[in-house]
Amino acid sequence: MSVDLKAIRAARHVGRPLVVHTPVLPSAALSERVGAPVVLKAENLQRTGAFKIRGGMNKLASLGDAARNGVTAGSAGNHAQGLALAARHHGVRCELFVPAGAPISKIEACRGYGAIVHEGGASLTEAMAASHAHAAAAGLVFCHPFDDEVVVAGQGTLGLELVDDLDDLACVIIPLGGGGLAAGTAIAVKSQLPSVRVIGVQAQACAPYLGHPPPDGPVTTLADGIAVKSPGEVTRPLVEEWLDDIVAVDEDAIADAMVLLMEQAKLYVEGAGAVGVAALLGGLVPPAASGSTCIVLSGGNVDLGVVPGLVRRNETEAGRRLTVFVRIDDRPGGLAGLLGIFATSGANLLEVQHVREGLALHVRETGVRASFEVRGRAHALAVVDAARNAGYIVDEEHPAGS
Amino acid sequence: MSVDLKAIRAARHVGRPLVVHTPVLPSAALSERVGAPVVLKAENLQRTGAFKIRGGMNKLASLGDAARNGVTAGSAGNHAQGLALAARHHGVRCELFVPAGAPISKIEACRGYGAIVHEGGASLTEAMAASHAHAAAAGLVFCHPFDDEVVVAGQGTLGLELVDDLDDLACVIIPLGGGGLAAGTAIAVKSQLPSVRVIGVQAQACAPYLGHPPPDGPVTTLADGIAVKSPGEVTRPLVEEWLDDIVAVDEDAIADAMVLLMEQAKLYVEGAGAVGVAALLGGLVPPAASGSTCIVLSGGNVDLGVVPGLVRRNETEAGRRLTVFVRIDDRPGGLAGLLGIFATSGANLLEVQHVREGLALHVRETGVRASFEVRGRAHALAVVDAARNAGYIVDEEHPAGS
Repeated sequence: MSVDLKAIRAARHVGRPLVVHTPVLPSAALSERVGAPVVLKAENLQRTGAFKIRGGMNKLASLGDAARNGVTAGSAGNHAQGLALAARHHGVRCELFVPAGAPISKIEACRGYGAIVHEGGASLTEAMAASHAHAAAAGLVFCHPFDDEVVVAGQGTLGLELVDDLDDLACVIIPLGGGGLAAGTAIAVKSQLPSVRVIGVQAQACAPYLGHPPPDGPVTTLADGIAVKSPGEVTRPLVEEWLDDIVAVDEDAIADAMVLLMEQAKLYVEGAGAVGVAALLGGLVPPAASGSTCIVLSGGNVDLGVVPGLVRRNETEAGRRLTVFVRIDDRPGGLAGLLGIFATSGANLLEVQHVREGLALHVRETGVRASFEVRGRAHALAVVDAARNAGYIVDEEHPAGS
Repeated sequence: MSVDLKAIRAARHVGRPLVVHTPVLPSAALSERVGAPVVLKAENLQRTGAFKIRGGMNKLASLGDAARNGVTAGSAGNHAQGLALAARHHGVRCELFVPAGAPISKIEACRGYGAIVHEGGASLTEAMAASHAHAAAAGLVFCHPFDDEVVVAGQGTLGLELVDDLDDLACVIIPLGGGGLAAGTAIAVKSQLPSVRVIGVQAQACAPYLGHPPPDGPVTTLADGIAVKSPGEVTRPLVEEWLDDIVAVDEDAIADAMVLLMEQAKLYVEGAGAVGVAALLGGLVPPAASGSTCIVLSGGNVDLGVVPGLVRRNETEAGRRLTVFVRIDDRPGGLAGLLGIFATSGANLLEVQHVREGLALHVRETGVRASFEVRGRAHALAVVDAARNAGYIVDEEHPAGS
């Protein structure tokens, strides 16, 4: 068997009980920025929060009686959740091996889908090895996250939906990790519409499809969902045959894309799911000259804990943060007077600290470091001026790298 | 004219060039929690980020030549953005009066849609009065955000989509502010399916439809989009006639709902848009005994700056924050040793501070207050135990109110 349109259409049929036909949404914000129609395939709204349920359902359906003892995988991510839910639907036992330190929210999600979760192994590689060993010992079927024609065909059902929903589809920009989603989607789309361009997007931190040597040790990237060090034996030739181009985006671009998707598109998208937006905004992929450019947002499973850092970074970049150092009288009311000045000029206090150590201060003087929320750069300068006009000695502090 | 199904169907026709038919999404997380099928009407994905464009398009279409000098409104919120974009589509001048201190992001969005924005007035009431006065002086048409039959008919087009998309619709839970969206939707749905129940949800901080006296001064609520102090002359009788019940939710429930929508549904929804989820989870509205319960998520225009606070609150509630006070030796390596213990037990340091003032400390002793990210309550206790077993005197600090 090879992966072809017929296999993908069959996968759509077996996925029907669980797989959501996710919406394609016009993005006015992105369309205006690039001057061409851009639509978003909101696969983050898929059941389990990512596309993996498509491949998982096809895999379980294909196994039949071979899965009588159960299935197993080494993953704490989207593959684990997709496989767990598909196994539950088929009444099949699912045992997952997750590396130590995996986010508790993801482990809980897998357990919520009825899986048995074994914690252990220092890395994803070790967890996969443990899953493999357990499969051999206990007669379970090991399920690879992407290097499997059945899985690729399942992921490709996303491409069928694009062809159904977009009359003027001209270009697909899609995250590229192991290659299952990108290859499957390209096959589904280009078998029907050969002139559509399909562009894969990797994270610069881990871009083996571009020939970059894989980094040693764990990969640090916002796009951990596509941080796959080695292309698969099944997927590599498919990606090489079917994709038109491959690009890679950096971490800043991914962070900006995640924030833009929240603020403008009202969608909560994980880093790996946002790389297509990063590639478009960074000019790495031109929008189609005519027809729609569709960006696939492949998943939304990002730990909430990541968000405050993204927001802070965005506010600083947009000039909405002001940090000052001021010398004030060390007597009752000294700080209150200073903060009154800032309040009057409309700056909202976020953090304040007395600083006395390591400074050449007069005996009756103390230092104050304060951070404010401001409306933008012009407002920040006006706020500093107001404090200076009131007689304070104010130094503005700038974040490292700015 | 009164608002009826015919008027709403006509509004759908004139809205077509801009209004997005927003998706209805199954919510596995909510369905499992309440034990009945729950779907989400993702109107936060509407153009301009909220339903107001529906009413705005109908208003502009109805005005025709009467709007030759332009339209005006007093608002910095969703009404302003919806009206601005509708006016641009019709080639009509739009002047908006926004109260001082309105979020810069919302003002910029209005300008992005081509509106002329006048800042000034201490409150929304003053901004509306300024808009009224300008309308009279300059011959513009003042556009009310909800108390207008044409606007109500426009908002009602959301209800037509629900009837089209949901074969088994049994209950609609919908935010209730001025009443335009709730009344229009109820009319559209119940004129076709009289047995469907429609429940309006207000914020407890401002619930005039429940007879609560309106608060004095500005209303502080996450659901500012529905903080309307007085029902309209047009909308009040429609709401009384067409809605089956009205409930009110508190701020904690709204915050929890916003986080759940991000984390589980992958949707970025403003406080006013999340009140329906809050009402369902709080047990104020039972899900339908048979058929689908549809929650309308009316908008997604929330300032990014709100999100870090929501996340922190959620992590604390979930036991994923630990704050300790520890006495350590005031000599090189004292803090490093302590932090090493915490690191080994898997707690991730968020904030650390030396505290020396106001404490009875030995001369060679200093206090350390440290906050960590932990995996849950059991992990927090294990972390504290590990430090105690290493000989440290550790006091856990609990946030106020917990």
